[in-house]
Amino acid sequence: MKKISTRARDMQASPIRKLIPYAVAARKRGINVFPLNIGQPDIPTPAPIREAIKNFDQEVLAYSPSQGEDFLVESFAGYYRNNRIDLAAEDIIVTTGGSEAIFFAFLSICDAGDEVLVFEPFYTNYNGMAFETGITLKALTTYAEDGFQLPPVDIIEKAITPKTRAILICNPNNPTGTVYPRKALEDLAYVAKKHEIYVIADEVYREFTYDGLAHTSILQIEGMAQNAILIDSISKRYSACGARIGVIASKNKAVMGACMKFAQARLSSPTVEQWGARAGMMMDPSYFEPILEEYQRRRDAVMEGLAKAEGVICKTPTGAFYVIVKLPIKDAEKFAQWLLTDFNHNGNSVLVAPAAGFYATPGMGLNEIRISYVLEVKKLKKAMETLAVAINQYKKIEEGQNNQACAANG
Amino acid sequence: MKKISTRARDMQASPIRKLIPYAVAARKRGINVFPLNIGQPDIPTPAPIREAIKNFDQEVLAYSPSQGEDFLVESFAGYYRNNRIDLAAEDIIVTTGGSEAIFFAFLSICDAGDEVLVFEPFYTNYNGMAFETGITLKALTTYAEDGFQLPPVDIIEKAITPKTRAILICNPNNPTGTVYPRKALEDLAYVAKKHEIYVIADEVYREFTYDGLAHTSILQIEGMAQNAILIDSISKRYSACGARIGVIASKNKAVMGACMKFAQARLSSPTVEQWGARAGMMMDPSYFEPILEEYQRRRDAVMEGLAKAEGVICKTPTGAFYVIVKLPIKDAEKFAQWLLTDFNHNGNSVLVAPAAGFYATPGMGLNEIRISYVLEVKKLKKAMETLAVAINQYKKIEEGQNNQACAANG
Repeated sequence: MKKISTRARDMQASPIRKLIPYAVAARKRGINVFPLNIGQPDIPTPAPIREAIKNFDQEVLAYSPSQGEDFLVESFAGYYRNNRIDLAAEDIIVTTGGSEAIFFAFLSICDAGDEVLVFEPFYTNYNGMAFETGITLKALTTYAEDGFQLPPVDIIEKAITPKTRAILICNPNNPTGTVYPRKALEDLAYVAKKHEIYVIADEVYREFTYDGLAHTSILQIEGMAQNAILIDSISKRYSACGARIGVIASKNKAVMGACMKFAQARLSSPTVEQWGARAGMMMDPSYFEPILEEYQRRRDAVMEGLAKAEGVICKTPTGAFYVIVKLPIKDAEKFAQWLLTDFNHNGNSVLVAPAAGFYATPGMGLNEIRISYVLEVKKLKKAMETLAVAINQYKKIEEGQNNQACAANG
Repeated sequence: MKKISTRARDMQASPIRKLIPYAVAARKRGINVFPLNIGQPDIPTPAPIREAIKNFDQEVLAYSPSQGEDFLVESFAGYYRNNRIDLAAEDIIVTTGGSEAIFFAFLSICDAGDEVLVFEPFYTNYNGMAFETGITLKALTTYAEDGFQLPPVDIIEKAITPKTRAILICNPNNPTGTVYPRKALEDLAYVAKKHEIYVIADEVYREFTYDGLAHTSILQIEGMAQNAILIDSISKRYSACGARIGVIASKNKAVMGACMKFAQARLSSPTVEQWGARAGMMMDPSYFEPILEEYQRRRDAVMEGLAKAEGVICKTPTGAFYVIVKLPIKDAEKFAQWLLTDFNHNGNSVLVAPAAGFYATPGMGLNEIRISYVLEVKKLKKAMETLAVAINQYKKIEEGQNNQACAANG
């Protein structure tokens, strides 16, 4: 009996979760393991959101409309207006997290076997959604050396095939922290319009830009109304990952009509959180100011820590709360495991995400890790100090093994 | 530019929603339109569930584990134990509604092009999930005349092809209200084991059986542990459709391992409602007694009303809160529209679901409607009286048109 489908067999399990058992064991041995591996913000969910959830008072916890509650769709439209993004209520469908928005985007514009162009390293769950919808993610590599900027337009254009239906970007980027300049988006727009394909822009980290940098939405690029599909979510914006409230939005009526069919097939997104989400959208944007200052301090703490490790390559990222670090070692997965099984510095260690899981091309990212900075600065400083010590120590161990290997061969 | 995918183009929009604009217009003209078309219970969500949601007090509304919160998985395991269904915590994944459970089941055991055997009429959203996963639903017809019982085992067995991966049932059934006797499930088990395929059993209406009838779960059939996949949800059980909390469960570890990968790809189900759902699972089963009595009274009101319409075929259903009625007319879709555009009885009319949308075979169910009885008895009696008058009246109109047509031809 063939127990499971080929696609289920071939689908990658979460690459980040593999290390969890080692972290659990390390903690049992009394090691303090700082989590630098997750995208779950530690910032409290804003009180107005929590209050709105508490105040939900309908007698029947009923389905919400498949498009989302009217009041929430209107709130999102207002939010976009305030962000100078041209989207009306009719262009918006509330989704069960940004994950479902990606899923709807793939389903709506791609048949099985179609291609979507992505830039590696990329958010691993794009892989999951691609698997589920039978599409192929074709990856162009971006590099630590230039801060993971997009490749030149001619390289992008050459990667377009007759099967390509869209270019998918995450901006600000998870896992690199890169914020794409307007010029890069204009390049994508040029390619999309010339080849009559879409740009799917995952902008769930929209507010998270540092050093005074302004974010540019794909919908702020001229002439992109019919070619742009926006992915959004309140998860990171309002520290409300567990609410599972996202958005798919486009001015392209055919795309939104298609998405509506898929939205109807799953009936609705959770109802109570839609009340919470509205309360979030109604908050004054000044809410973000202290939070961005905090994240910028954290980003700086990460970079200061990395400066103490010899031979790492990492340009200062300007957005989201991630950074990909190229290490002066060979195998980041072994290193990440070693951190939990064989290392501690004054009783501390760190849990990091090996970056190979963020690449589609085999062999890429083997010496890279992703660090999430969702820890308060004091802890983060200690975590980064620990990581720097570990990198320097592991580098010597690898060099020693190399020397031994050379001696054995010699 | 090919704007949307072929699958998005070909996917059916919700067949029930087509009539909504007509209902809105009728209400604007002052007609009182009783909704007999929806599956949204009107019973209040139990207070413990609403209280648990109100009492959610975590500072960060964080992702829950992809499998579901430990406490909820344990609560479900306890609920199954109380229902003499052998499922442990490790056999259970919390899903975002029963919809996602179906989706995971299809993904986990079927590749694109594989077949799942269903019995029409069936819940339309199975179509949506089949479209999304690229599988083919192959339908065997069941009939109003015998209360939509499953076909004999040899008919079922003949429908199995090398591509068949599962038989999907809904028990108690939406849209027919049929509760399958143990013998029918044993037949399915025989076929499943002989042909090494699965039975996916959607048992979200488990508690909703009438006339003292006991429900039999597919997992209570001997030897089915490895071949059964259970779909479940709190939506109907606790009048909590908007919570989006369901379950997929199986003793088959390969299947659950596959489901876990898909669960990780969408990160988690909504967190707050998991606290609510636990409160529901902890309620004493006596909670259901008055509710089932109420639904049984409603079912009886529906049958009494139908008795006043001439020529309808409808065996008394014994479960869920739906009934499929075969009408003495030709075109139930036109009838349903006419109810809203041209008919009223003392200022009342009804909104019903034409049943053709619940069939996969073209031309089937054209003279059938689905009635949901989620209205209080007093209103339901008036709605059914209105429907009976309408059926009798429309029948005469159709007969008149036929006579005219005959005269014109003669």
